[in-house]
Formats: sequence, C-alpha cells, structure tokens
Amino acid sequence: MPEFRKDPVIKRWVIIATERAKRPHDFVKPKVEEKAGFCPFDYGNEHTTPPEIIAFRPADTAPNTPGWWVRVVPNKFGAVNPDLTPRKYGVGMFDAMDGFGYHEVIIETPDHNTHLALMDYKQVEEVIWAYKQRFETIMKDSKIQYVLIFKNHGSDAGASLQHPHSQLIAIPTIPKRVQEELSGSQEYFSYKERCVFCDIIDQELQLQERIVEENEDFVSIEPFAARFPCETWIIPKRHSHDFRNILDKEVKSFSQILKNTLYKIYGALDNPPYNFMLHTAPNTGEGKNYYHWHLEIVPRLTKVAGFEWGSGFYINPMPPEEATKYLRAVEIP
Amino acid sequence: MPEFRKDPVIKRWVIIATERAKRPHDFVKPKVEEKAGFCPFDYGNEHTTPPEIIAFRPADTAPNTPGWWVRVVPNKFGAVNPDLTPRKYGVGMFDAMDGFGYHEVIIETPDHNTHLALMDYKQVEEVIWAYKQRFETIMKDSKIQYVLIFKNHGSDAGASLQHPHSQLIAIPTIPKRVQEELSGSQEYFSYKERCVFCDIIDQELQLQERIVEENEDFVSIEPFAARFPCETWIIPKRHSHDFRNILDKEVKSFSQILKNTLYKIYGALDNPPYNFMLHTAPNTGEGKNYYHWHLEIVPRLTKVAGFEWGSGFYINPMPPEEATKYLRAVEIP
Repeated sequence: MPEFRKDPVIKRWVIIATERAKRPHDFVKPKVEEKAGFCPFDYGNEHTTPPEIIAFRPADTAPNTPGWWVRVVPNKFGAVNPDLTPRKYGVGMFDAMDGFGYHEVIIETPDHNTHLALMDYKQVEEVIWAYKQRFETIMKDSKIQYVLIFKNHGSDAGASLQHPHSQLIAIPTIPKRVQEELSGSQEYFSYKERCVFCDIIDQELQLQERIVEENEDFVSIEPFAARFPCETWIIPKRHSHDFRNILDKEVKSFSQILKNTLYKIYGALDNPPYNFMLHTAPNTGEGKNYYHWHLEIVPRLTKVAGFEWGSGFYINPMPPEEATKYLRAVEIP
Repeated sequence: MPEFRKDPVIKRWVIIATERAKRPHDFVKPKVEEKAGFCPFDYGNEHTTPPEIIAFRPADTAPNTPGWWVRVVPNKFGAVNPDLTPRKYGVGMFDAMDGFGYHEVIIETPDHNTHLALMDYKQVEEVIWAYKQRFETIMKDSKIQYVLIFKNHGSDAGASLQHPHSQLIAIPTIPKRVQEELSGSQEYFSYKERCVFCDIIDQELQLQERIVEENEDFVSIEPFAARFPCETWIIPKRHSHDFRNILDKEVKSFSQILKNTLYKIYGALDNPPYNFMLHTAPNTGEGKNYYHWHLEIVPRLTKVAGFEWGSGFYINPMPPEEATKYLRAVEIP
C-alpha cells in the first residue's frame, strides 16, 4: 500500500510507492526501455492497460478496442491508489497518511512515433479537452485537494514509455510547491492589489525581450528568473486562477500556443527531453484574486546537482533573453 | 558578469552564469567528457587550474607544483565571482543582484581513479580539514550569508570531471532551502522546546529500523521521508548548529562514518552517481538552539520528473526501512 510521509523539518511530503517497489539490483542492471516492438498504448493492445476511464472514440466502437484518438487509463503502477482513504496517522514523532489519490495516463494519440510538437492543432486540442474533462471530474471528489497534470518527454525527463502520453496525479493535500506559489502571489497581491502574473504579462509585452509566442488569449515567455535553458511559461492573458475556467475558445488558442511553443523548443534544441506541469489553484477555493493558472515547460539539458539540492537555487548557463532569440528564430511550418 | 535573479512569485533565486554561457548547439552535440587522458587535477597539471588557495603539501614543495595531498582552487568557470560586490537592483518589477560569491573546488586526492568511499580514513579526514579551513575563512567575509559545501559524483549527478573533488559555493543571501530548514526547525523548537534533529536521533536509535552506521559522535540514517532510494543523512549526536564548531576528535569520527556510509552506498548500488550537501547554519548567527548541522547524501537513481517539479513531492520506490537493510548488509573491508 502506498504511503505519504512528511519530512518533520521542512514539511515536504514524499510518496513511498510500494506498487513500484524496487531493490538495489533493479537500479544496477541497465534499464530495458520497452519489450522490443511492444507498446501498451498502441492500437490493439488496449487490453494490456487497466480499463479506460474515458476515451474519445467513434460511437460505434467498444471501450478498450482500437478507434480512439485520445484515451485515459489508470496508471498500471500508480504511485497512489483511489481505493484507499486519506487516513492520517502518527509514526512516533513522524506524520504519515495512506496513499490515497488518482494516478492516470492520458494517451495523446494512437500514433506511437509522433509528439505534441508535431501533431496538428486539432489533435492537441483534443488532448486539452481530455485534461479538462478529467480535471473537472476529479475536482468533484472533495477528498482531493490538488490535481497535477504533467508530461515527461524523453527518458532523461523521466518518461518510461516513448508513446506520447501525459499524466495526472491527484492527491489529498496541497503540495509544497503550490503552497509556495499561493503564498507568494497572495503576498504580492496584499502589497500591490494586483495579480503578480498579470503584472508579469504586462511588463513582458511592453519590453518584448522575453516573449516567445503570443496569440489572442495567451503569451509564452522565458521567465526572468529561468532555472533552465529555454524554460518557457505559457500564461493566459485573462486573469483566472483555475484551469477549469478555461473558455472553449481558449482551449483552441491554448492548444495552438502549446504546439507552437513545443515546436520551437523541439527545433532549437533538437527534440530535447522536457517536462511540463500545469500550475493551477487547489480544490479549496483559494487564489481567486491573486493566483493565475499557467503551464511551465522545462527542457532537461542541465543536471540538477549538489548546489541545487543544497540551496534550492539554480544555475542557468543561458540568459532567458538569449533563449528567447533562439526560440523566436525557429519558424513554425 | 554573473547575475542573481529572483522569481517574483516564489522568491527562488537563480544564478545566470555568464562564465558558463551556452548556446543551443552546446546542448545538442554529444558532450565530450574530458580531453582524452588529460585531467587538470592530476599531478603536473597544476598550472592549468587557477592558482591554489590552500593546499596540504610538504613544506619543501612550491605552490602549484606536485606533492600536495589535498588542493583547493577557484572554479575556473565559477558560477559566482569574488571580485564583484553584492549590489542589489530592480529590473522593472523584478529583483536582481550582481553575481558576487566564492566558487571553489576541493581536489580530494592526487589519485585520479579513486573515490571517497575507497580512500583510507586519514585521507578523508584531510578532506574534511580542508572543508573546515575554507569554511571558516570564507565565513569571516560578512558579505557572505551562506557557504554550501557539496559533491557531485558521476556524470548523472552533474560531475563534469571524474577526478575526485568537492565544491564550495558561498553566496550573499540565505538560500531558500536553508531558510525552509531554519523555519521548520524553529517552529518545532517553539512547540517542543527541543531540537527536531536531536529528537530524530533519539527516536531512530531507539527504533533501530533506519540506522545505517553509528559511531561515538555520529549516526547515519535513512530519513523517514526519504526522497530517493538509499538517501542517507549523517547527523552529529552532539547538538551543534554550525559545522565550524566541529571538534578535532569529531573531524576524525565524521571522516570515518562518511567513508563507511559512502562505501555501503557504493557496495549496495554498484558505485551509483550521487550528490552530497553539507547543511549548516547561515552566517547570521541564526539557529543556535534549534538548528543542527548534518550531511545529506542522495544517490541519483530515479529521475526527477514532472510530478516532482510541479508539486515539490517526491516518489520513492524504496521504503527507507528496506534501504537500511540493503546498506547494513554491505561489509566494510
């Protein structure tokens, strides 16, 4: 049974993921990427994943058969488990909690060999619709405090399968990183009576030094204090703390800027490993005035090493103003 | 000129390291590890590093010549620069600071092919003496608020040279990660009137479930909320917030437990990449009653991916109680 455990000093939670339990030997032997030629996310292999939760598919096809264009399934080796309850308990001086939560995989396309950066806008839009639908449904479970949608692309970014997919993990507590963003943006709001993200957009659009891409509803920027070369954030122009409030027309424009931004990263850095994370407000109603949902994309080209682990600082060898130039120079076909 | 930049939302600083400036192309081409056969840290190549700051060497040898057994030099591509001042300034709504600081390399031995885990106790002790000496000297610069000593072992842990070495980065601000530990341990102290680390040691010694190694002055444990398989902390039994206060006899016992613990990790995981970070109090005098210096060792066997970046949570597939068993089973030769 998976278990949440809390560090008693800095209050960081970890998940002891028993479904993925590993012995030292598992790390020592070279990793076998995939059984040669076999992919559980390809057409015809639907029975090798847990049964689908939702799928976008023609009305005349049966669940867990081919024909779908986006498919959402529980993670076979979920880090958390929806059948538990979020029971909290002490372990001596320490704090722990049963590993309740949702861990799902969004299979973005039946095409094994493509990538969000290369798909057509319509397909990316379908993926965003799947995100939104699962997000809305899970947020109705009041035991869940936070839903995190993220993507690992490339094995150096933690992807264990090549087939294009994103993931969703929903947990019964507000993660540390989210709490920090909420506190920081609340502090800014109480000082300025403005949303810090709205101010960033205003300033960046004026300066035009760190804007990678822009459309009617979104901007993608290199953040001023970027941690990584070509780190890029996509921020909606309209103030909104909660991804669920995205408008239908914004789903379309978000898909466009997401694909274009990923294409520029793909082009400038030759298909680098990357992670992206959707940052949105928790299920507690916090953040309405002062928080602002957005997507953070981090190419994984530099190693996180001792200095970063010990300080929480990052060393970035590429000024974001330079990164902007490299990314802007890539033309969208 | 390197520059510190602060994220306006979560107040995380980054260093834009212009001495290490990279273009996209630098990431795309496969990394050349070292010029074949040439190592700037080997005997005879002393002139290829910046001049040594200190070296432990026979009295009849000249600086920057062979004969030394531990040698400390400025990092040739320092992320920060001691010739600057910590001038703070605004950039529109953002905050930045000139990249003042010290970045040094502690060359742990002239022997290119060894490793702290394999050295004899005496040599490890000499390395700790070098840490202490540089730490004490730099803490006398009142512009410095924090000195971080760390080690990257193996290229997956961010090491760019194989020759055994540690690093020291000293900066004019208290890093986020350290501030979190100070706040957390202060909060515990104000509730319990005890040091949280002292309490952890007491409980762990009683339970004997997560103790890897113990001597008169130190314990090494798997933390209850370990982020990584075989993450291990070495904690002094005597309450002390500041590494500078280590006693002469503790330098010896610290060297012993460090070598033994690294040897166990080396043995259990077949010489894995790892980072270690010395956690100690800042140069502001904070933490005397409630903080407790220690060393955190993190083997780098799992990938930090989207979930970790987005949440600040970690998923650990090896319960620390299991890791303890694996590590205890390794015998020190």
